[in-house]
Amino acid sequence: MSGKVAKTLGKMTVTRPSIVPNKYFTSHVAKDVWSLTNEAAAAAANNVNNKGRELINLGQGFFSYSPPKFAIFEAQKALDIPLVNQYSPTRGRNSLIQSLIKLYSPFYNTELTSENVTVTTGANEGILASLMGIINPGDEVIVFEPFFDQYIPNIELLGGKVVYVPINPPAGIDERVVKGTEWTVDYEQFANAITERTKAVIINTPHNPIGKVFTREELTTIGDICVKNNVVIISDEVYEHLYYTDSFTRIATLSPEIGQLTLSVGSAGKSFAATGWRIGWVVSLNPELLNYVAKAHTRICFSSPSPLQEAVANSINDALETNYFEQMRQEYTRKYEIFTKVFDELGLPYTVPEGSYFILVDFSKVKIPDDYPYPEELSDKAKDFRISHWLINELGVVAIPPTEFYIKEHEKAAENLLRFAVCKDDQYLEKAVERLRLLKNYL
Amino acid sequence: MSGKVAKTLGKMTVTRPSIVPNKYFTSHVAKDVWSLTNEAAAAAANNVNNKGRELINLGQGFFSYSPPKFAIFEAQKALDIPLVNQYSPTRGRNSLIQSLIKLYSPFYNTELTSENVTVTTGANEGILASLMGIINPGDEVIVFEPFFDQYIPNIELLGGKVVYVPINPPAGIDERVVKGTEWTVDYEQFANAITERTKAVIINTPHNPIGKVFTREELTTIGDICVKNNVVIISDEVYEHLYYTDSFTRIATLSPEIGQLTLSVGSAGKSFAATGWRIGWVVSLNPELLNYVAKAHTRICFSSPSPLQEAVANSINDALETNYFEQMRQEYTRKYEIFTKVFDELGLPYTVPEGSYFILVDFSKVKIPDDYPYPEELSDKAKDFRISHWLINELGVVAIPPTEFYIKEHEKAAENLLRFAVCKDDQYLEKAVERLRLLKNYL
Repeated sequence: MSGKVAKTLGKMTVTRPSIVPNKYFTSHVAKDVWSLTNEAAAAAANNVNNKGRELINLGQGFFSYSPPKFAIFEAQKALDIPLVNQYSPTRGRNSLIQSLIKLYSPFYNTELTSENVTVTTGANEGILASLMGIINPGDEVIVFEPFFDQYIPNIELLGGKVVYVPINPPAGIDERVVKGTEWTVDYEQFANAITERTKAVIINTPHNPIGKVFTREELTTIGDICVKNNVVIISDEVYEHLYYTDSFTRIATLSPEIGQLTLSVGSAGKSFAATGWRIGWVVSLNPELLNYVAKAHTRICFSSPSPLQEAVANSINDALETNYFEQMRQEYTRKYEIFTKVFDELGLPYTVPEGSYFILVDFSKVKIPDDYPYPEELSDKAKDFRISHWLINELGVVAIPPTEFYIKEHEKAAENLLRFAVCKDDQYLEKAVERLRLLKNYL
Repeated sequence: MSGKVAKTLGKMTVTRPSIVPNKYFTSHVAKDVWSLTNEAAAAAANNVNNKGRELINLGQGFFSYSPPKFAIFEAQKALDIPLVNQYSPTRGRNSLIQSLIKLYSPFYNTELTSENVTVTTGANEGILASLMGIINPGDEVIVFEPFFDQYIPNIELLGGKVVYVPINPPAGIDERVVKGTEWTVDYEQFANAITERTKAVIINTPHNPIGKVFTREELTTIGDICVKNNVVIISDEVYEHLYYTDSFTRIATLSPEIGQLTLSVGSAGKSFAATGWRIGWVVSLNPELLNYVAKAHTRICFSSPSPLQEAVANSINDALETNYFEQMRQEYTRKYEIFTKVFDELGLPYTVPEGSYFILVDFSKVKIPDDYPYPEELSDKAKDFRISHWLINELGVVAIPPTEFYIKEHEKAAENLLRFAVCKDDQYLEKAVERLRLLKNYL
């Protein structure tokens, strides 16, 4: 797409450059971690080590199993109702809004109304709509590192500027099993990152990839700083039902002032093991603020998939009747028990997951030959990309290098870590454990 | 959200204004035609005229009936496959991409590949992704009037500027039945609207609300002007299977040069009477250009609903085997026969629909009392908003005032017209005809 063309029809004759696409996309051409890892996995599937054995993929966080039977049944039933196949109101079907009110009112300790909830096309679009609702070009948004990679283009494509504040790993992370609470934010640093252009901060709890569940004290400190500075809190709570601590704290509930600044994003995909359904929502105690999110959603997607909204509406009711979310928590506690035993056996340190379905494992002790051959495209990447590459090629196990979730200047913090997803069926996790036992040959 | 707050924690103390949402939303607060019409319908449902009779809603273009049985069956079947409930690749499921290749290759007279197709979350997001893929702030996009109202915020939210070029109605539109081909673009005016900042033009064929199918000659003229000026053509072809002329011309196929500039947007919602499924796609003979659309889609929605993608993939195959699209055309020809007879009886002129599922009817001959009471919010609207309000309140029939699809300066062109949607079951259309016969009392 180069060269110049002359305009000849019409009154004016102007010479204009040829098509320049959105400069954001032409200036961000590096392959993302998902492409790099999937391509490496595909290439390694038939190498000499992996020949005849299954590749174990604990990379991307998709479920290897089906949503619960009741959710599938609700979706199939919804399709049979003619009008459930047509447009829903842009803020969401009434059935889903009512179910969300029923689900969240006890958590918020108040009777929510339809003004407190808006449905989005997945939590992903929920975060984009939240940002689009409030960002003007030049505004700053604070993001904690490590971050969910999608936040960054979502902010930058709207003309926003990302300001990074790290969640610092504890000392000795390469020597001992650590707790999520030991990963800490320097609140002085956070407060100093706020300027007159700061519009919002994105927090994520339970946290991907750390598995940290922010405590009431931590969230109160963050929330109070936001109140003092009038900074909107976009709280990515997509793993809200996957916590293994005593309780999960929602920042919006910590004070009326914090509640008025908070947009909390939820996900049917994570809550019902249905990442392909693309149903999410934003909850807020501030209807005026939420209204801007809804306006943005109308212009992004117009409305969200109707039969799947109806299915989620009924599935939430089913889940509340059957104690499904508590069962899911127990199931994941078991999955972690299955999976972490191999690292305990090997003496490889990890961060004990308090929430989400990820685990960060420290590979400092694993001896990888200095002359191990890596592809050229990893040359400017941190060490964890090479560890990941080695693990795929030697053991046939796919994990994600977490420095992708840091800016270059801060990636040292995670260069020896790998992120494993445990949202897989138990049998698969047992196979993963068996394969990872081979690491003992490299210690 | 007013007042100032002082920042006290952290090194600096800055005084900063309170939350200013996205200024686009605070400066565009007028109620849209959909809200106005739906609210008017709700209010009129129980007035003295409508008491005891059903409100006939031919306003918004949603289907009053179910998608075809085979499509529902395919969706229910897809849900039974565990992994079809998880994330799809951001460019779309392979099954759907293969079906789209099969569907479109004959139309494009070449064997398309997966590089020529990308799946979006409805055509709506397909148009947003097309715009986001190529627009930089300050770029201009030409839109023909009347336009689909969603185009405008889609362009402006990205920092683009809309340049309007009218499709001019024929003389005597208030006196006689006219053809869609009689609505014409002044190509000199179109060419003159192109500046050094023009990035794209959006065309819509078959056209909503005119029902016009652009001819090969018209599209060649538009396409050649775009080639001369290197302007991207976003061709909104969501009604591509709903044409009642001998054939439907796709602008991308008119010359290799035009093909390289064109992004064609399609919709499963329109093609399978499933507006709530939110599956669309963009087809282009230019893989490089399309790649920017796919990149934007990844950042907007990440991926599209998987079970519904799978359902559409299989439904396209079913449709090709059973000649479904041809049957749908015949069905709509019948629907128009049912519906237009009342206007023929009354002698009310309309534009003969060549495509889409809308019809524009001229109400100049209908005598509405000068002192008819209108709500305050219609005072700055064109006459068609008042005709629509009158029709809802007197006859209980909902239709859309088309000046919503014009800028203020050009709305005279459509001030006597109303848009009716015929995507309703035949029985409902017969009821509509019966009700509209009451118009004879006002002629």
